[in-house]
Amino acid sequence: MGKTIAEKILSEKSKSDAYAGDIVVAEIDQIALQDGTAPLAIRQLMELGTEVRAADRTHFFVDHAAPSPRRELSNDQKFIYEFAKKVGADFNPPGEGIIHQIMVERYVKPGDLAVGADSHTCTYGGIGAFSTGMGSTDVAVAIALGKNWFRVPESFRVQLDGSLPKGVFAKDVILKLIGDLGVDGATYKALEFHGECAENMTVEERLTIANMAVECGAKAGIFESDENTRKFLAELGREGDFREVKADEDAEYEKEIYMDVSSLVPVVSKPHNVDNVAEISEVEGTEVNQVYIGTCTNGRLSDLEVAARILKGRKVKEGVRLIVVPASRRVYLQALDKGLIRVFVEAGGMVLNPGCGPCVGIHQGILADGEVCISTQNRNFKGRMGNPNAEIFLASPATAAASAVKGYIADPREFL
Amino acid sequence: MGKTIAEKILSEKSKSDAYAGDIVVAEIDQIALQDGTAPLAIRQLMELGTEVRAADRTHFFVDHAAPSPRRELSNDQKFIYEFAKKVGADFNPPGEGIIHQIMVERYVKPGDLAVGADSHTCTYGGIGAFSTGMGSTDVAVAIALGKNWFRVPESFRVQLDGSLPKGVFAKDVILKLIGDLGVDGATYKALEFHGECAENMTVEERLTIANMAVECGAKAGIFESDENTRKFLAELGREGDFREVKADEDAEYEKEIYMDVSSLVPVVSKPHNVDNVAEISEVEGTEVNQVYIGTCTNGRLSDLEVAARILKGRKVKEGVRLIVVPASRRVYLQALDKGLIRVFVEAGGMVLNPGCGPCVGIHQGILADGEVCISTQNRNFKGRMGNPNAEIFLASPATAAASAVKGYIADPREFL
Repeated sequence: MGKTIAEKILSEKSKSDAYAGDIVVAEIDQIALQDGTAPLAIRQLMELGTEVRAADRTHFFVDHAAPSPRRELSNDQKFIYEFAKKVGADFNPPGEGIIHQIMVERYVKPGDLAVGADSHTCTYGGIGAFSTGMGSTDVAVAIALGKNWFRVPESFRVQLDGSLPKGVFAKDVILKLIGDLGVDGATYKALEFHGECAENMTVEERLTIANMAVECGAKAGIFESDENTRKFLAELGREGDFREVKADEDAEYEKEIYMDVSSLVPVVSKPHNVDNVAEISEVEGTEVNQVYIGTCTNGRLSDLEVAARILKGRKVKEGVRLIVVPASRRVYLQALDKGLIRVFVEAGGMVLNPGCGPCVGIHQGILADGEVCISTQNRNFKGRMGNPNAEIFLASPATAAASAVKGYIADPREFL
Repeated sequence: MGKTIAEKILSEKSKSDAYAGDIVVAEIDQIALQDGTAPLAIRQLMELGTEVRAADRTHFFVDHAAPSPRRELSNDQKFIYEFAKKVGADFNPPGEGIIHQIMVERYVKPGDLAVGADSHTCTYGGIGAFSTGMGSTDVAVAIALGKNWFRVPESFRVQLDGSLPKGVFAKDVILKLIGDLGVDGATYKALEFHGECAENMTVEERLTIANMAVECGAKAGIFESDENTRKFLAELGREGDFREVKADEDAEYEKEIYMDVSSLVPVVSKPHNVDNVAEISEVEGTEVNQVYIGTCTNGRLSDLEVAARILKGRKVKEGVRLIVVPASRRVYLQALDKGLIRVFVEAGGMVLNPGCGPCVGIHQGILADGEVCISTQNRNFKGRMGNPNAEIFLASPATAAASAVKGYIADPREFL
């Protein structure tokens, strides 16, 4: 019987013939933790008192509070650093970038099984890996044993037909899909993306979509790996890591979803849920106080490029704060080369060090009471950016940049 | 009878013939407030219930917590913004830069009397102004009336002879002076700088020295304005703001201090007092966890240039965090032009948005327990950077950069 990508990867990693619904114990290729969750996992590991078998596949990142805004967090970061050194795990200090961006830039390969102590670990599906977020205890077990148990998820086949119209981006596609499915519309499923639009997408676009799979409850969001994936890895000097990952023609899906992206318009998620999706025309004119461009969803070079295209030679509206955070040191340097950092700073924006920036509500742009932010991040829950009396709209980098210029939520199509 | 610069400026602004010890009521040219102190001043002003006569000379800055790391601070910043709009005062949002840098770049002129709700308002003495920090209530009165009372300070004449040896900078000069005088060695005095070295100094060097006058208790630190000052203003498009400000030959000084800078070596202030000054050789080898280059003391272009000269083609030592914060948007753009931002990021550093950065212990690099930081800032009091269980050494940008490369406090002379 044919297999989905999830079934194929989990079969291979568990050395079994696994299908949706099976429970398998699988070898894990890569393990990622960030500064918010790593201290919990490390303490669990210390309590377990076992040996650490997977240190060579374990990567620690300081990205959520980078650089630290509070003494307690500084102490946590020091604790992580010392543990990583002790066991010989990889440690990425503040300023290197966001966990998911660096995992994709350096470590994860198509066909890999990866876990992370972070909900958006599903990002790596953009290069054809099966990756998923787990609780800190489960990740601690993964570090100790190099394996863990998984229930092989049923898959939804998402067919993206057509091509993206001007001003409509991967972010709009995934927001629309989440709006249609609802925040629990794909709980524990794997979303598998197919169709002309998916095939034509760059890996950066696929990463944006895979990143948000969890926002409709999915365990994973996966694209087949192909020539675009090979090219992406080659640019990183990792062509040798390429491997073709495809679903079988006769794989079984719990559900098939069709979307003709040609008919899409720019959309936003309105406060306070990701699935509260509206077409841009419904919210256009809503005044904003802060615009945030970055995160593991939309902090890559192509995201910064489209934002800079809109902001070049223009100014951020008086009274609006524009915050731009490249997803990694590599992205930062690319953006420097292309003059994008200059565009943002000349426009009146702030460019901060690679990391999660204000997305998580820890620092670097907490909203005031009554303020409105439009952000390229993946979550707009009440209080997400540090203030429950504020509102967050989610959008593409283009919509965010257009809104920064106008001072209110704006349609990017007039700028492109 | 001849006058010091302090006596001249306070006489002119009070329309009186004032000498040290006199109490005068003087018209104030410029008033500056930052986000830490402005809310207090505004609330005082609201309680006074008076009209606001000096709104056109009042400048608000969000630099201490920029962008905001806490909801309460975000609300304070919104409060400041709304007040500034209401009364028609100047408002500089997060990302514009540090209060003292922007006051000097745009507003303060030689011969001006300026006050600010910040201790380091004395910085503007670097361009021949009399400027001093005041409490929020006194600044509120200044905003209301456009004037305030001053006790004309006695002056110390500081004669800087000779020329700076390789690896020794303005920062070393002022640290050495503070070490010699002690933290209360010039309480309420004006330090007036003269001599060959002072005359040859660029305005950026003078600003570093004037900035730290308050660290030995001085009310002001003042340089004569001259051709270097004219050139500095001309580069800012402000040549018309130039005016020669000189002390009279027969002015009376309470004290004369002589320093031959030719014999100086790089120095640092050791924890936990600014006057705890040691030659570099005494502390060389002390391991550091964080290096901070920036602030109103040393976040200008020439500071970043010397740091970049040392860091170019080198890497920050593993385990050390390098944080670089340009003092203003203008400095940031200049540093971009000269490729300095690239040098810092390639070396492994973090470049943050213009502002105070981690200097004040609010965010952007709080130290962990037991950590050591070497910083170009002006204060190393216990807890200054957010953690009383950490240690701060103060040094020049060159010493800081050399230490970032080595991973311990290092002598910059081997790199220059």
